[in-house]
Amino acid sequence: MAKQEDAFKKVVSHAKEYGFIFPSSEIYDGLSAVYDYGQNGAELKNNIKQYWWKAMVQLNENIVGIDSAILMHPTTWKASGHVDAFNDPLIDNKDSKKRFRADVLIEDYCAKLEDKAQKEIDKAAKRFGDAFDKAQFEATNSRVIDYREKQKSILSRMAQSLDNNDLADVKALIEELEIADPDTGSKNWTEVRQFNLMFGTKLGASAEHAMDLYLRPETAQGIFVNFLNVQKTSRHKLPFGIAQIGKAFRNEIVARQFIFRMREFEQMEMQFFVPPGTELKFYEEWKQKRLNWHLALGLGEENYKFHDHEKLAHYANAAADIEFKFPFGFKELEGIHSRTDFDLNAHEQHSGRKLQYFDPERNENYVPYVVETSIGLDRLFLALMSNCLKDEVLEDGSERTVLSLPPALAPVKAAILPLMKKDGLGEYAEKIFDDLKYDFNLIYEDKDSIGKRYRRNDALGTPYCITVDHESLSDHTVTLRDRDTMKQERVAVSELRRIIDEKTNFRNLLTQLS
Amino acid sequence: MAKQEDAFKKVVSHAKEYGFIFPSSEIYDGLSAVYDYGQNGAELKNNIKQYWWKAMVQLNENIVGIDSAILMHPTTWKASGHVDAFNDPLIDNKDSKKRFRADVLIEDYCAKLEDKAQKEIDKAAKRFGDAFDKAQFEATNSRVIDYREKQKSILSRMAQSLDNNDLADVKALIEELEIADPDTGSKNWTEVRQFNLMFGTKLGASAEHAMDLYLRPETAQGIFVNFLNVQKTSRHKLPFGIAQIGKAFRNEIVARQFIFRMREFEQMEMQFFVPPGTELKFYEEWKQKRLNWHLALGLGEENYKFHDHEKLAHYANAAADIEFKFPFGFKELEGIHSRTDFDLNAHEQHSGRKLQYFDPERNENYVPYVVETSIGLDRLFLALMSNCLKDEVLEDGSERTVLSLPPALAPVKAAILPLMKKDGLGEYAEKIFDDLKYDFNLIYEDKDSIGKRYRRNDALGTPYCITVDHESLSDHTVTLRDRDTMKQERVAVSELRRIIDEKTNFRNLLTQLS
Repeated sequence: MAKQEDAFKKVVSHAKEYGFIFPSSEIYDGLSAVYDYGQNGAELKNNIKQYWWKAMVQLNENIVGIDSAILMHPTTWKASGHVDAFNDPLIDNKDSKKRFRADVLIEDYCAKLEDKAQKEIDKAAKRFGDAFDKAQFEATNSRVIDYREKQKSILSRMAQSLDNNDLADVKALIEELEIADPDTGSKNWTEVRQFNLMFGTKLGASAEHAMDLYLRPETAQGIFVNFLNVQKTSRHKLPFGIAQIGKAFRNEIVARQFIFRMREFEQMEMQFFVPPGTELKFYEEWKQKRLNWHLALGLGEENYKFHDHEKLAHYANAAADIEFKFPFGFKELEGIHSRTDFDLNAHEQHSGRKLQYFDPERNENYVPYVVETSIGLDRLFLALMSNCLKDEVLEDGSERTVLSLPPALAPVKAAILPLMKKDGLGEYAEKIFDDLKYDFNLIYEDKDSIGKRYRRNDALGTPYCITVDHESLSDHTVTLRDRDTMKQERVAVSELRRIIDEKTNFRNLLTQLS
Repeated sequence: MAKQEDAFKKVVSHAKEYGFIFPSSEIYDGLSAVYDYGQNGAELKNNIKQYWWKAMVQLNENIVGIDSAILMHPTTWKASGHVDAFNDPLIDNKDSKKRFRADVLIEDYCAKLEDKAQKEIDKAAKRFGDAFDKAQFEATNSRVIDYREKQKSILSRMAQSLDNNDLADVKALIEELEIADPDTGSKNWTEVRQFNLMFGTKLGASAEHAMDLYLRPETAQGIFVNFLNVQKTSRHKLPFGIAQIGKAFRNEIVARQFIFRMREFEQMEMQFFVPPGTELKFYEEWKQKRLNWHLALGLGEENYKFHDHEKLAHYANAAADIEFKFPFGFKELEGIHSRTDFDLNAHEQHSGRKLQYFDPERNENYVPYVVETSIGLDRLFLALMSNCLKDEVLEDGSERTVLSLPPALAPVKAAILPLMKKDGLGEYAEKIFDDLKYDFNLIYEDKDSIGKRYRRNDALGTPYCITVDHESLSDHTVTLRDRDTMKQERVAVSELRRIIDEKTNFRNLLTQLS
């Protein structure tokens, strides 16, 4: 665990040091759970978006992409259920005045029980190799079972209370377990209340009354309310999909784990509209297609697993997560949901407009069913950063840090490095830059030793370093260094475009998907 | 004027009919001054972004791009002056309960005076060719001068009152001019008050007090607060620039003209940091560079003009707009501002942190000066739509509507059209689609007559139509139709990728900029 925490801290500090992610408004001591993407982060994020958009919209003849606004008519969120039911159970400590998620306090309590169980196991493990003491092992085993049973019973009671909106019992549970404010130790708690996670704002449109708006908590509803407009103007028949990338906002009370859970985040969502009764077939198809999309990135098949939901949201008849092995364990990266006709029906009811499709084959009108794929862009960013960041010991015993991003996603495709500025090497290198800049995002660097410049580009994931030396001037060749193998080869300047393109083109990812 | 209004209405309805722009939340009767980009609008918008990003970030070795959050620490907006001074003067009609911008009421009054002047001129113009009547012409001339003098005096008094924040005089002016609520005719007005244009929201971080946040009204401040982080991690020396594309929000009371002035809109901004004393040189350079960027789009040099500001904002020592000829006249499309060290200084003062740069050549620390280029993405979208939408009468007397977008920006690069589905033509066309889809956004259409499909693709700006017929099956050629010339030629299927790429690659735009 300590090792994982170290690895995670290293990702966070690397992300800052190399211009990937900065805390928002850092000069004002930051804004909690909001982050800015720096010069390399912005490029990586844009490349992730392009990979998703090309894979979803460009490769699929029957999927189109839209870009709907963050501000929507407030009835949208009444219809979707967010006004009434998008809540976290909160509790305040009366002494410290701090606010907590009641469910998280209880989960943390259970995590401590599991720590105790783990300590028993670790202690017992050290006794192996000594004379076998049955009684001791049996006692350990029984204590571990106790710790685990207790956790199970607590979590199941909490789940039931939350389901029944029995918040008094959630508070009772906190009191029975004698859970204290982790900072101050105080057990002086308020009641548990539901707190809506949507950010509100006001549209000052008239003197009489301002209109209450929300910052959208998800991008999906922007697709649903546009379903008919898109279907009619694109003339697609079912099944067809609408994709979207965009910001969403959630007023999380306890936002943790860097960019994993932010108050302002970005989603890449696709809603696939299908005839009723066919949704589970498409659900299975999309589960597999989306997993393949992730696998094409080459982060290792062992780092992904499906988590099929046993308990379904009120709008779903099937749901699964694709989980990724983050430094803090397997966690949700993408969700695939069979959302039935819940959303379109709800919008029909609240808007009074028909949101139906005439199926020429069935010769009938119906509200389509929907299969959704929804990925957290920032989470994928974190998955890439944490998986690709490696400390390597080289043959000569020296060390290097390398960020082995998939070349199509790397912020910078090549660094142009004159060995020195003088003797015309700088000018020659600039000519190469000017020739390649129309096709690739490049770095030009003439400061520091060439070794330092290689290390620096390894650390920000640049697939190729191009070194201009005195030979270049006469024979028009350069040294091309590969980030991953660190091999250097002499290549003709005229070959550079083709070589870089072959390695960094999105085709490399996309052709794995068919 | 009526003709221009018709042209504008046609743009709005075309944008909806062909999936470029839908009113937001239309099923709930829309959200005023907010729009969604449909399947073709989203592609066009993404392509505009790419053109800008490539031109600014990729082509310039000393410009990098970032992506900062919409939510920022609220002191940011105190420092920037937006909390205190980002206001519109509003007035309410007590009878109709409607709210108006006081300055717009007065401007509309002046526009009516100008209409009257114009009517006098039009009437007089018809008298040319008759016997010359000096007295009549003189009388006309004197009335026109009166109308113009009156406008000038009203606008100058209003400007002065607003500058002095003398809102009582603004109201007095409205009363003196007997301006009435345009809908009801009532002259029963409230006082004039300043209304802040920022959308507010609350971060529910603690029990004691929620933190008041704002949706950013501009993206520039996200660059300023990150200046040092980016400069240090990118190791750029001055001069260097930071670019950003992102959403901004303004609670406009009177939002008009479709996507020209929206409550939620998108900016493409670049802040160029330079040594003090050099800013006006760079300001002139960027004015020219930005104009060239626009001209490369080929919408016609005559549709652009510079408007140098005589009156400067408190933070600027030089400012100009690039104006474009919209259907409703020349209006601001992009602003270039020499912002001095105003913003960085303000953030130093409010944050208590040094935001200085050590200049190794001057061997001193200083707060850099800033030259800003700021373009409204949605305005450029509107410029393209309104300039490129044309009704053409063809040689045979028939008509067509064509959207002659620059091919690199067109939402769809080619339409793959089997003449008919049967006889294997559909399969052959699908094979072409599957071969080209990794490189281009395509449409596949097998419904309707081929003529209808051509017209439809003309209307959404598709540069090429590729028609598969019986001949294709045997000789592996297709008909390639050019959107603009409507010429059709027979080309080998194996040549398609090269031909489409040559026409639609961003290189076509970017190489014009050097």
